[in-house]
Amino acid sequence: MKSPTAFRVETDWTHAEKKIARKAFHAALYRQCEAVTERAKKMLASSSPPYGVWKLHDYLTLERDKVDRRYDYRYSVLISVFAQLLRDKWLKLADLEGLSEDKIEQISTGWSAES
Amino acid sequence: MKSPTAFRVETDWTHAEKKIARKAFHAALYRQCEAVTERAKKMLASSSPPYGVWKLHDYLTLERDKVDRRYDYRYSVLISVFAQLLRDKWLKLADLEGLSEDKIEQISTGWSAES
Repeated sequence: MKSPTAFRVETDWTHAEKKIARKAFHAALYRQCEAVTERAKKMLASSSPPYGVWKLHDYLTLERDKVDRRYDYRYSVLISVFAQLLRDKWLKLADLEGLSEDKIEQISTGWSAES
Repeated sequence: MKSPTAFRVETDWTHAEKKIARKAFHAALYRQCEAVTERAKKMLASSSPPYGVWKLHDYLTLERDKVDRRYDYRYSVLISVFAQLLRDKWLKLADLEGLSEDKIEQISTGWSAES
């Protein structure tokens, strides 16, 4: 999963921070996929045969592409990835608790700057 | 929607037969898409986040490809298309009522020969 738009930030991550980051990353991924699942259920519930189900397929194709591009767990781009996820509300500041103040500021700034 | 495996049969279709064929074609398409929709609902109901929804996407991609290849409404291949749909139970003999005996036999023979 690579994000071509993610900017590279040279940052050291301690072992403890890596654990927090991994958990935060998966929490955001879980939320986003759960939202896609709920939307898919609604689309199916109100879809008209025969072609309604293919509208769902089109939707899932787009969402999967977004997720594949967005969730890039390389430490060199993780600040940028988190900033984007925070901006889009899949990540919460509470998920980042335990990261250094610098990192949280970088992530929040990226979020503020782009929002 | 083209079926590369459909064999070409030179057959004349009367105006009345074309109406029946169009209706039968859409009945089969409706049934197949409805079955995909029902299966999709079951998959979603029992899917586990975060990745369950992408299994549904994989399933829909395969089914859409099958449907796109199978439903070819050219009169030159329609006997073969109907034979396949009958074999797969998306089409019923009752849907074909009103077609000439020759056509029904060709469709049923194709069905018998391949089943």
